[in-house]
Amino acid sequence: MNVSVVGATGYSGMELIRLLANHPSLSISGVYSSSTAGSRLDAENRQLHGLSELVLKKFDAEQIAHTSELVFLALPSGIAKNLVPELYEKDVKIIDLSGDLRLKEPGEYEKWYKKPAAKPEYVQEAVYGLSEWNRKEIEKAKLVANPGCYPTATLLGLAPLIAQGLIETDDVIIDAKSGISGAGKKTSEAAHYAQANENLSIYKVHQHQHIPEIEQQLRHWDSSFKPVMFTTHLVPMTRGIMATIHAKVKKGVTSQELADAFELKYGEEAFVRLRGENEFPSTKEVYGSNYCDIGFRLDERTNRVTVVSVIDNLVKGAAGQAVHNANIMMGLDETAGLHFAPMFP
Amino acid sequence: MNVSVVGATGYSGMELIRLLANHPSLSISGVYSSSTAGSRLDAENRQLHGLSELVLKKFDAEQIAHTSELVFLALPSGIAKNLVPELYEKDVKIIDLSGDLRLKEPGEYEKWYKKPAAKPEYVQEAVYGLSEWNRKEIEKAKLVANPGCYPTATLLGLAPLIAQGLIETDDVIIDAKSGISGAGKKTSEAAHYAQANENLSIYKVHQHQHIPEIEQQLRHWDSSFKPVMFTTHLVPMTRGIMATIHAKVKKGVTSQELADAFELKYGEEAFVRLRGENEFPSTKEVYGSNYCDIGFRLDERTNRVTVVSVIDNLVKGAAGQAVHNANIMMGLDETAGLHFAPMFP
Amino acid sequence: MNVSVVGATGYSGMELIRLLANHPSLSISGVYSSSTAGSRLDAENRQLHGLSELVLKKFDAEQIAHTSELVFLALPSGIAKNLVPELYEKDVKIIDLSGDLRLKEPGEYEKWYKKPAAKPEYVQEAVYGLSEWNRKEIEKAKLVANPGCYPTATLLGLAPLIAQGLIETDDVIIDAKSGISGAGKKTSEAAHYAQANENLSIYKVHQHQHIPEIEQQLRHWDSSFKPVMFTTHLVPMTRGIMATIHAKVKKGVTSQELADAFELKYGEEAFVRLRGENEFPSTKEVYGSNYCDIGFRLDERTNRVTVVSVIDNLVKGAAGQAVHNANIMMGLDETAGLHFAPMFP
Amino acid sequence: MNVSVVGATGYSGMELIRLLANHPSLSISGVYSSSTAGSRLDAENRQLHGLSELVLKKFDAEQIAHTSELVFLALPSGIAKNLVPELYEKDVKIIDLSGDLRLKEPGEYEKWYKKPAAKPEYVQEAVYGLSEWNRKEIEKAKLVANPGCYPTATLLGLAPLIAQGLIETDDVIIDAKSGISGAGKKTSEAAHYAQANENLSIYKVHQHQHIPEIEQQLRHWDSSFKPVMFTTHLVPMTRGIMATIHAKVKKGVTSQELADAFELKYGEEAFVRLRGENEFPSTKEVYGSNYCDIGFRLDERTNRVTVVSVIDNLVKGAAGQAVHNANIMMGLDETAGLHFAPMFP
Repeated sequence: MNVSVVGATGYSGMELIRLLANHPSLSISGVYSSSTAGSRLDAENRQLHGLSELVLKKFDAEQIAHTSELVFLALPSGIAKNLVPELYEKDVKIIDLSGDLRLKEPGEYEKWYKKPAAKPEYVQEAVYGLSEWNRKEIEKAKLVANPGCYPTATLLGLAPLIAQGLIETDDVIIDAKSGISGAGKKTSEAAHYAQANENLSIYKVHQHQHIPEIEQQLRHWDSSFKPVMFTTHLVPMTRGIMATIHAKVKKGVTSQELADAFELKYGEEAFVRLRGENEFPSTKEVYGSNYCDIGFRLDERTNRVTVVSVIDNLVKGAAGQAVHNANIMMGLDETAGLHFAPMFP
Repeated sequence: MNVSVVGATGYSGMELIRLLANHPSLSISGVYSSSTAGSRLDAENRQLHGLSELVLKKFDAEQIAHTSELVFLALPSGIAKNLVPELYEKDVKIIDLSGDLRLKEPGEYEKWYKKPAAKPEYVQEAVYGLSEWNRKEIEKAKLVANPGCYPTATLLGLAPLIAQGLIETDDVIIDAKSGISGAGKKTSEAAHYAQANENLSIYKVHQHQHIPEIEQQLRHWDSSFKPVMFTTHLVPMTRGIMATIHAKVKKGVTSQELADAFELKYGEEAFVRLRGENEFPSTKEVYGSNYCDIGFRLDERTNRVTVVSVIDNLVKGAAGQAVHNANIMMGLDETAGLHFAPMFP
Repeated sequence: MNVSVVGATGYSGMELIRLLANHPSLSISGVYSSSTAGSRLDAENRQLHGLSELVLKKFDAEQIAHTSELVFLALPSGIAKNLVPELYEKDVKIIDLSGDLRLKEPGEYEKWYKKPAAKPEYVQEAVYGLSEWNRKEIEKAKLVANPGCYPTATLLGLAPLIAQGLIETDDVIIDAKSGISGAGKKTSEAAHYAQANENLSIYKVHQHQHIPEIEQQLRHWDSSFKPVMFTTHLVPMTRGIMATIHAKVKKGVTSQELADAFELKYGEEAFVRLRGENEFPSTKEVYGSNYCDIGFRLDERTNRVTVVSVIDNLVKGAAGQAVHNANIMMGLDETAGLHFAPMFP
Repeated sequence: MNVSVVGATGYSGMELIRLLANHPSLSISGVYSSSTAGSRLDAENRQLHGLSELVLKKFDAEQIAHTSELVFLALPSGIAKNLVPELYEKDVKIIDLSGDLRLKEPGEYEKWYKKPAAKPEYVQEAVYGLSEWNRKEIEKAKLVANPGCYPTATLLGLAPLIAQGLIETDDVIIDAKSGISGAGKKTSEAAHYAQANENLSIYKVHQHQHIPEIEQQLRHWDSSFKPVMFTTHLVPMTRGIMATIHAKVKKGVTSQELADAFELKYGEEAFVRLRGENEFPSTKEVYGSNYCDIGFRLDERTNRVTVVSVIDNLVKGAAGQAVHNANIMMGLDETAGLHFAPMFP
């Protein structure tokens, strides 16, 4: 089956290409990039030197629909939404990796992203592509909003505890940390090596656009959920997200119940790996892979549980989850093309 | 005035030597190290090549007392406590950088450090050397327990809010992060470059020995304080600690009141630098210096404040604070030898 | 076909397991490790958590020969040689990733490795596994000495110029740089993060054990070759080798002739990628992959050519080249299991 | 004595400010920056928060001459040269950290820098500020061209061997490596953290603008010098330069003679530190300091010596050497304000 990638020279786009290159059923029929149209893909991405003869093209909905069954939009928020309508009218499935179609509530997008929102009909139509939790809807979807990197790590860590009603809904603090590729390929002072190296910083405190995305999903699972405290840090590494989640457990909840909740949900999942109690994953243990590893510990002194959820932000937090969703949408084996071990060290 | 450094080849010891080399009033009369006695200091620490002719000696309380007015013990916890009694009997002031004399409560040290505790009389005698908050007692002290690196960052960030009664005492979550030098010079798998680089990990979850140190001091300020949630992460950088502190503010507390509390306490302090509201320091902005930089933001959605406090763990979190305390103990200008700007980039 | 991996918890061993996990024709029937026998492989290597149920076993030549057609020895130099004889007597092919069987000249091993040499009959029997240059012999070999990481990068960069007689044989300077994983998993002061980070060092100047390996092969191609100048640096990164090779070209040699020499040899090679003239690869452009990327530039001011050859030391410089050799030895498609793009960024 | 800094928000400018802040005799009377004029210095450089009340101003030669005895130009090449004439007419000494005044030969600047050259009269007037070798001229100079970072490391490593006539003048290969701050504060794809981290690259092969600067000085010492082979690499670290210099020694030259040549020249120098034979410095051993550390080894197999010279590119390679030159020009103790130990780890 043929797929296209729009935004093929950004970090998520490059990662899609890396993953699709080894996919047993999906092949790339076209790569699109407004800024570098006309160049060979492997001239723009030197790591692909000689591995692809594709030439980057200007976006062309007609051509995409004609040559592919599914298209990945790997574009910055604010741009993707302009391309969706034209594509949607045609016979092609769409996975949008940007934040443009994730927030259902009118006004929320504009408040947090500080940009005009996508047209409501597409927002409403888009299925939130958190693969492990929404696969039924994803299966039937024509349009999928691929989750953000922080929400993926956070929601996968919290969801089983909510599903089993084990935590209080008014006392969740998420202290998230990300490698610098999360900020994308665009140059900036914050991403300058000399500034970012040997440096740990906090940013967008209480104002990260992933906050409403997380809360929307939490409330979807339990409408009583109160606002969460969510902070984001920039860690001097290229890839990796760790969400350190602190939640108050309900009275009497035991460590075993917490373990059971995770096991119940993820015991059979291919891409969520549970650590034993009191054992915690580090980001490098999922480096370059589609795994989300989760560990937790209940602190009896404070009656809070600390859940640690790690992903590779460019794989499970972007391109890998998108391929996972593509597999689901196309009726393929869910794990096709995603069976590779993390790279360590 | 002459001082000695015991443990001169560990990271805190090396940093003491770097700082003392430029101190206008303190000179190093002796350096001690059990493992490398007999070598020249600059042969063990190549960055000092040619800058010192000192020869490392085996610990000798008699000699230390004879040749110096103050001694810094820069040794691992569990070892320092054995040297204190003999030194204490002599005419020499002592600053202990280890954790051996910090916990007043019998049993706490053994519970958290999993080692036999120091003799109670020395523990009781030791003044907790959080310079900005205890200078009166430090001034008169013969024996100072220099604070741990995490407690320094955490307590400096929390103290003004407690002093003004602005936060709830049962809802404090501290998500702390440290560079790898915090684990000391000893080799280990966790500190192996190939393992630690491009990796973010969490460790000693709910079990870090700095928890009781933090809580003891919080209760000293406000006896109603409940256990805090404290987690520690290893960040791929050499130096730097960030404590991200999430606390529930009391009803009606405003951002201005928080700002005032910080200003009131630290407005005149030489080594605590306040950022404007909603502006946050990064660890590199204090790199190699004795500054603690603090920023905060009140989140009205959750009624919590996030306080961010950063230090260089080897300076303000160890050697720098020790020199600060030495200045206080010796009646010198408090800032002597500590007036240097952070190194950036 | 079944293969075994001896030394499965070292860096080369782990990388073999990562690669073999996706190999279409080779499966791992046994993993061996003296230090961790009895543990599950995925308990020792947490990135493999849940991906393998193999249990590490003590070395057992009988069992290996019984259960596998080929065995990879991923052991430190000095240890591998003790296991070779017993295995060799049995019906199993052997690829030794250590340096034990590489140096043919009696005495050279002991001089450079400062250890007793392997038995001469095995040394003589071993085929030097530089895949692109020795595939005929590798095809028929029962015992292959897999090349060292530095020699792989260096020899691939120099060989075409020697084959075409374009450079002087008495004026080659190789300035090589490696990431820290090259030193292996063993902890050491040099590999301590706080020491290695933000640090560039040179080591084993003129004394690296890969010097005689490089020269042996150069003389194999052109017996007139004089000693080369070879230096090695430790770069603060986990993976990657760059060999910067400076060679005097013969009088009148043109840039075009150099380009032709590379093209002639590598034009059809799957794993050597040539850059256009005056374009140079960086190590990250081959990260995690089996590619060796090569660029060069002729300096008319000095009549020297600078050739730059980069590899991932754990893949093309160790496990990847070993799998390539295994493919050749087993009559498989040479590129089987090695078709994956570098990971960037 | 008062000094001004023009270009105070670039990396060299920031480093000048860090060093001058602790200088016993020089104080900063004015800081200038075209892009940020009007801001407080400490608002642009957050590490200086609260440490300075200076306000950045637009360049004003009149004011500079009026308020300071010496001015540091810490500007990019191509800009500094436009400011020199106006300043030169006034009563103020000038140290230019750019490359604009270094190349004496007409045409060379334009060939290598690809920009219009400075006016010849200023180029001729400028003294090359390699402190250890030119202090007599620097003492009397009104205008000093501060050396480039690579030339500083390279020339200090080579000069004693040339002075004693120990090496051949037609066979010098310099393989230089730099941390990323060497490329300045300007954002670029090459300096993007995600691109530069875990990556080693080579750049400007045979075309670096420091080549003619090095050769001009070599020929100044020995007019028979032939072109050198000089390559530059970008290492994933913020600070530090290592020049690995490979030179053919003259027939019969011994290791002792090489050691003597270094000792003869640098035995009494404050900022050049010699390592014993076969002992090599790493860049971190001079981190943040004004030292240049040098080690060497003679390879009898090839009759070449490898000299390793390391500096902190922002200190000895820029701001530190500039302060050293200022001390010389102002008749101060040469080492004033530069007596601080490297920061390690």
